[in-house]
Amino acid sequence: MGKALVIGVDLGGTKVATAAADLDGLLLAKVIEPTRPERGIGAVIETIVDTIKEAATSAGASKSDIRSVGIGSPGPIDPKAGVVVFAPNLMWHNVPIVELLESELDLPVCLENDANVAALGEYRFGAGRKSSNMVYITVSTGVGGGLILDGEIYAGSFGMAGEVGHMTIADDGPLCGCGNQGCLEALAAGPAIARKAQACILHGQETIMTDMVSGRLEEITSKTVGEAAAAGDILAKEIVDKAAEYLGIGIANLINVINPDTIVIGGGVSNMGELLLQPLRRATQRRAMKAAFEKVEIVKAELGSDAGVVGAVCLALGRL
Amino acid sequence: MGKALVIGVDLGGTKVATAAADLDGLLLAKVIEPTRPERGIGAVIETIVDTIKEAATSAGASKSDIRSVGIGSPGPIDPKAGVVVFAPNLMWHNVPIVELLESELDLPVCLENDANVAALGEYRFGAGRKSSNMVYITVSTGVGGGLILDGEIYAGSFGMAGEVGHMTIADDGPLCGCGNQGCLEALAAGPAIARKAQACILHGQETIMTDMVSGRLEEITSKTVGEAAAAGDILAKEIVDKAAEYLGIGIANLINVINPDTIVIGGGVSNMGELLLQPLRRATQRRAMKAAFEKVEIVKAELGSDAGVVGAVCLALGRL
Repeated sequence: MGKALVIGVDLGGTKVATAAADLDGLLLAKVIEPTRPERGIGAVIETIVDTIKEAATSAGASKSDIRSVGIGSPGPIDPKAGVVVFAPNLMWHNVPIVELLESELDLPVCLENDANVAALGEYRFGAGRKSSNMVYITVSTGVGGGLILDGEIYAGSFGMAGEVGHMTIADDGPLCGCGNQGCLEALAAGPAIARKAQACILHGQETIMTDMVSGRLEEITSKTVGEAAAAGDILAKEIVDKAAEYLGIGIANLINVINPDTIVIGGGVSNMGELLLQPLRRATQRRAMKAAFEKVEIVKAELGSDAGVVGAVCLALGRL
Repeated sequence: MGKALVIGVDLGGTKVATAAADLDGLLLAKVIEPTRPERGIGAVIETIVDTIKEAATSAGASKSDIRSVGIGSPGPIDPKAGVVVFAPNLMWHNVPIVELLESELDLPVCLENDANVAALGEYRFGAGRKSSNMVYITVSTGVGGGLILDGEIYAGSFGMAGEVGHMTIADDGPLCGCGNQGCLEALAAGPAIARKAQACILHGQETIMTDMVSGRLEEITSKTVGEAAAAGDILAKEIVDKAAEYLGIGIANLINVINPDTIVIGGGVSNMGELLLQPLRRATQRRAMKAAFEKVEIVKAELGSDAGVVGAVCLALGRL
């Protein structure tokens, strides 16, 4: 018999990342498998169970050494009922994932929304280690978030808190995928940044981005824009500054309402680093209440794509 | 010797309202005195102490029957240190009110921001009685707010949470008193509603409001606009609808971020009742995440101008 383990599962639309950790949360092994949700719920559950067993084995232990499982899923989810309410990427609707996994594994399983779980990971082992009230914002294909209040995930009355990307910050702004207009996500997520660059180029503005994608404008992503801005491209820098300003408005709103000590910014777009964070902090300062802004740290996430599994491990530890 | 009492004090720039209550929170007596802050800190503290003794006497008891005192003050305040950090209406800066009152009274004194205290009052004895996560919004000269999360005041890391009036909802909107632009307060508080009516009349729009103030446009307030709208005036109705839309955007943002079960709307402007609340709910529905909107109640506050003293009584009860 090996030593006691907990398991963290980061369930996504494209892959399942599963980690085994010791009871201090130290990661011992990580396994990644494609999710392939088109195979149906049962097959995805089987994949999750397989990755859990494999992670335990890779950690030099076995299934019987596992004490608990934490899982982060796309949401909205119902954490009390253990149900994934709706996850378009998985094509899931009201899937009782906790019940399904508990009957397969005969272990306590704990479910939370993926952004909340990533927030928990950054809070415990990442950029929010010194925090007690922390807002986590992830900027990639969308803008998501998670709140840690008084040291714990705050999920709201129905598990749906932290949808920071759908704050309206421009009352007559562009349409958002959610049906509303002027959402932070519609203005500052990766696709909005890429679209802005494409539109400016089509309107004749000069930029090195055109050459970077060999004229195939549809290949421009927010990463292209970030790299061009880092290389000194004026248009790219303007687009990054504008996205940073919108993010700064959203963050100022969160500071004014929640008065956190730390804001942690993760997701692919945050990889631009200070190029994004400097204009973002300036915009936040202009928009937030002075006394609250002066006391908040705005920092880049530290765990990268591991935030999800690390947070899921923390969730599992919380169930011991 | 009378029965055991607690005291709640609602400290404002114009008046001090002080209530004595029994240990179930039932109000037994209320005393109101002008604050007259121009007399200096010592004189205001003396007024507070006098109202406390008078409220105890009116309740058929005496100072020795008082168990604890709760006080709501304009903020920002530091609840842990018991200090009013900055209150322009009182001309106070870093006043250690808890220490000053405790040394006068020899009783435990508990301080919170006035909007948070009013939120607590509505939560315990008003429109939020059935809630566990509640957002209180007060719309009058400004737009303020307080959060009750998991049944307790959530004041943030530094006592400054709940500044919902300074969320930016129109990125290039009108200037706000706080220095930012497009704040909810600059778009939907009483003065914004009155200004809009005045501007429309000056631009030649017809409305019964002109007669209601006998042509003295500077006398138009949000109350005038509400009364004209209730009487069927088209311009007034449009102005109320627009303010309701802005409030709806702000409330949708709070729903998306905090996922409360109840939103309670108080303050003078909320006295318009359903005239304001109906278009406000429609705007909120358009802007908020569907699943979260479906589960939230948006209701008018019940305690009116008593929310502050009732909440301060609750604060005092919490110190027993």
